[in-house]
Amino acid sequence: MTALPPGSTIGILGSGQLGRMLATAAARLGFRCHVYADASGPAFDVAAETTIGAFDDGDKLAAFAREVHVVTYEFENVPVVAASAVAGIVAVRPGPKALAVSQDRLDEKRFLDSLGLPVAPCAAVDSKADLKAALATLGAPAILKTRRLGYDGKGQARIVDAAQAEAALAEIGRAPAILEGWVNYEFEVSMLAVRGLTGQLAFYDAPLNTHDGGILKTSTVPSPLPERHLVVAREIAARIAEALDYVGVLAVEMFYVGDRGPHPLVVNEIAPRVHNSGHWTLDACVVSQFENHIRAVAGWPLGDTVRHSDAVMTNLIGAEVHAWQSLAAEPGSAVHVYGKRDARPGRKMGHVARLAPRVKAAT
Amino acid sequence: MTALPPGSTIGILGSGQLGRMLATAAARLGFRCHVYADASGPAFDVAAETTIGAFDDGDKLAAFAREVHVVTYEFENVPVVAASAVAGIVAVRPGPKALAVSQDRLDEKRFLDSLGLPVAPCAAVDSKADLKAALATLGAPAILKTRRLGYDGKGQARIVDAAQAEAALAEIGRAPAILEGWVNYEFEVSMLAVRGLTGQLAFYDAPLNTHDGGILKTSTVPSPLPERHLVVAREIAARIAEALDYVGVLAVEMFYVGDRGPHPLVVNEIAPRVHNSGHWTLDACVVSQFENHIRAVAGWPLGDTVRHSDAVMTNLIGAEVHAWQSLAAEPGSAVHVYGKRDARPGRKMGHVARLAPRVKAAT
Repeated sequence: MTALPPGSTIGILGSGQLGRMLATAAARLGFRCHVYADASGPAFDVAAETTIGAFDDGDKLAAFAREVHVVTYEFENVPVVAASAVAGIVAVRPGPKALAVSQDRLDEKRFLDSLGLPVAPCAAVDSKADLKAALATLGAPAILKTRRLGYDGKGQARIVDAAQAEAALAEIGRAPAILEGWVNYEFEVSMLAVRGLTGQLAFYDAPLNTHDGGILKTSTVPSPLPERHLVVAREIAARIAEALDYVGVLAVEMFYVGDRGPHPLVVNEIAPRVHNSGHWTLDACVVSQFENHIRAVAGWPLGDTVRHSDAVMTNLIGAEVHAWQSLAAEPGSAVHVYGKRDARPGRKMGHVARLAPRVKAAT
Repeated sequence: MTALPPGSTIGILGSGQLGRMLATAAARLGFRCHVYADASGPAFDVAAETTIGAFDDGDKLAAFAREVHVVTYEFENVPVVAASAVAGIVAVRPGPKALAVSQDRLDEKRFLDSLGLPVAPCAAVDSKADLKAALATLGAPAILKTRRLGYDGKGQARIVDAAQAEAALAEIGRAPAILEGWVNYEFEVSMLAVRGLTGQLAFYDAPLNTHDGGILKTSTVPSPLPERHLVVAREIAARIAEALDYVGVLAVEMFYVGDRGPHPLVVNEIAPRVHNSGHWTLDACVVSQFENHIRAVAGWPLGDTVRHSDAVMTNLIGAEVHAWQSLAAEPGSAVHVYGKRDARPGRKMGHVARLAPRVKAAT
């Protein structure tokens, strides 16, 4: 398990903004990147090599795998068969087990439950009868979610009373689903953990996350999470990372229940990758989540996660990105634009981190 | 003078590490980069488009100019004819005047002198007789420097006594030169200023610079420069930038003389570009010199230059880069490796910024 030296090539599956930020972080360390995706995207503009290919094109994936020294990914819906095919040629980090667990909400819940971690009560829903039974057990309100391929609130329907069950099933397209019981929480936080190739663990501060229409809107550090529960959040993330023999950045979304329930924190979901709620680490930390993910998958020592500034990260969704000029003029603001051509509604186009350095004295 | 929107293409002349850091900074803002250079280099790996062409190939330069929305450069020895040819097609920022002045040490001295700024005493040297006369006037020790194309201590010879004159002329290859009289200074600082398209000015803190064998070794912020003289350093940089109608980051190296001479600061030389002594801004400031240079040339509002951390930047020269693994493991360190294949002696291979956040309270 030796570290990849500068000059090595990192393979990245996926060409979105997370891939773009991973590629620029890799460049800081002297790496070249080869991005593989089914379409051109923001990561292509900062990659030394690019391949357009389907995620089930075994030949193209194998050719890609032979040209790189390690492979990682920027989204968790990479088909496990694709990741496994690549893994036969070159190391894939995080490993296929993390992908498999996080691609199916039911498998993920069962995995978390098997670790003794608190999760929202839930039941599998494959039919109208299942849903009726689940609602009878879990009560309303509840949330119906597809087991697979959901993101940014897609594939979810809220059920406020049992009469909406049929409509909710239709809304999610009658795909295999789970019903999640309501958690009476105070706020949502996420824990961004990173685990190195030799098991070293590091943690970022836990941001407070707010959503709008199912899409992350803001992440704020520090959050109101009490210090003693920040420790709990770290322990939860560590337990998950160790159970998956994880390598890289792992994001764990959690509901903060505080004294309202038997556990202060309930795990909502995990993402086996760098995460939107950690974008503030680019500007508020010595080493960002992106660089630490690259360090981990390349077998490097992890970087310092210390936070030098308070920060509020706000996503720029759709046309909100058109405010780039006034955002760029704000004191203390770091504007990030992802270079996507079309500012469609609901599309993540960029973000702004508003920083307040934790300065003791100005010069 | 409208700002270039995200999605525009920035042309960069030169493919070295400064071009690489400019290109990744441009990517943060949603820009694409097209790098033009006479050979592949570190910037190529993070550029959307690349062209290999000579800097006097008018046709290739014109084709490049037609594909980009603005052109900037990472080194000041771009031939002025090349920059002027490009400038006939698309804006070149900083403008050719800044290039012309900074390419010739004698022209640069005369320009600075015409602004009433203190510079080291000097004389033109085109022959052995000139040198003898100059030594008689300026005394020894003195430094003989080629007028053109010197960097990292190349094209310089120190003359401790008049008997070394002949050898010094041979050492610099008998090129047109200047002899600079000795300045009895306490330390060297540099001022990193940035001027926007509409004349807006911003300044970074002034680092203390040390050299080894003519090559920058460390830049440290804060420097011991007294606050009242930091103000003077800013005024000097502002006067130069305004006289050149400058757009972008301008570096001004200065000797701090303090009370030893009539002026506390003597201008050593200027660089019409981002500068090695400002690399710490990548990790210690809200917006780095690289992003601010891109903002300026793209007509954006300048970003916040506030420094959130104290920093010591150390260049990794030649084989020093092989310590990347232990450097990466240091708490508070941000390691940068430029991706150059061959760690030749004297070659800038990377740098490390050692940070001490100016934290008022830890969480």
